[in-house]
Amino acid sequence: MFVGCQFSLYPMTDRFVQVILGAVEGLHQQKDLRVETDDLSTLVIGAPQPLFAALEQCFLKAAASGEHIVLTATFSRGCPGEPDDPICQPTKPIGAIESAIDPSQVKLSGVKASAQFAVYPLGSTEYMEVIYREIRAIKDAGISSRAKHFCTRLDGDVSQIFMVLGAAFDRAATATGHVVITATISTASPTQL
Amino acid sequence: MFVGCQFSLYPMTDRFVQVILGAVEGLHQQKDLRVETDDLSTLVIGAPQPLFAALEQCFLKAAASGEHIVLTATFSRGCPGEPDDPICQPTKPIGAIESAIDPSQVKLSGVKASAQFAVYPLGSTEYMEVIYREIRAIKDAGISSRAKHFCTRLDGDVSQIFMVLGAAFDRAATATGHVVITATISTASPTQL
Repeated sequence: MFVGCQFSLYPMTDRFVQVILGAVEGLHQQKDLRVETDDLSTLVIGAPQPLFAALEQCFLKAAASGEHIVLTATFSRGCPGEPDDPICQPTKPIGAIESAIDPSQVKLSGVKASAQFAVYPLGSTEYMEVIYREIRAIKDAGISSRAKHFCTRLDGDVSQIFMVLGAAFDRAATATGHVVITATISTASPTQL
Repeated sequence: MFVGCQFSLYPMTDRFVQVILGAVEGLHQQKDLRVETDDLSTLVIGAPQPLFAALEQCFLKAAASGEHIVLTATFSRGCPGEPDDPICQPTKPIGAIESAIDPSQVKLSGVKASAQFAVYPLGSTEYMEVIYREIRAIKDAGISSRAKHFCTRLDGDVSQIFMVLGAAFDRAATATGHVVITATISTASPTQL
């Protein structure tokens, strides 16, 4: 399964270079991922499980600095024209998913964060059904969530947030071959709601 | 025309609160925009021209700090279910656009930036045609651009970059009623390619 993302870390501190380099240390050496970095973002290509795990680790390492940290990411699965196009076709019709998202099963990181994300199922005229289905699933998942314009907000443990993003990415892929998720994850913001 | 965005400013400095507050000063008082801020992003609802102009001004004010600044934004036009849904229907068939994107007509800000962005035409099985059309238009536009995985990179003056984003947003809307553009704009990064 071909999956990739572009992600960026934004540490709101004069020490931002040091925090970023510390957070991504070892990422380029990970054998099950292809990683390329430029001045705007880091590309990671690989299977969903190691990819989401790697981003979670990067975020947690940056958060350990104690600074206000934001990670933004665009996850994409099944871009047409890529060589793996044939394996990216949907395998189940919309509505075939029975399993709920269950972040209570996740081992907690102990780091609290806030996030907002959006799911874009592409090439499908039924895309709003998929979006509404995922919003309902997250409401049932036992993690704090709230609708915002153009996205859904999550508040919880970092590991729960990454679990929900990974699950939404998997679930949307049953409906269409090309799925994009954009996400913003923030910790230690001085702004408290 | 109902258009909105969620945007965030990330100043990579200990003074980030001061830089953000200075950049968004006056935004909430602008009469032609609806603005709401939380700890993750600022929502701006309004017509495309004042909306893009407001974001450009926020970015330039933050950039004047001399710090490394990143702005991320998700622009959305024509969300189904919003009260303005009827006015968000496409007005022209795909391929009806003749006018090129011409950033040479823009008054330059004098601030250089790098950006990456992606266009997501939703609810259309012909969405890849729209994406390829916009990539071709940008290649012809006389601004430095380069393909990356999942997005297109731009390098140039801040005002040229915002002009290209606004034009791509307008052009994609002729093909489908619901268009999302995600963009990342960065200035004064210490990483030089």
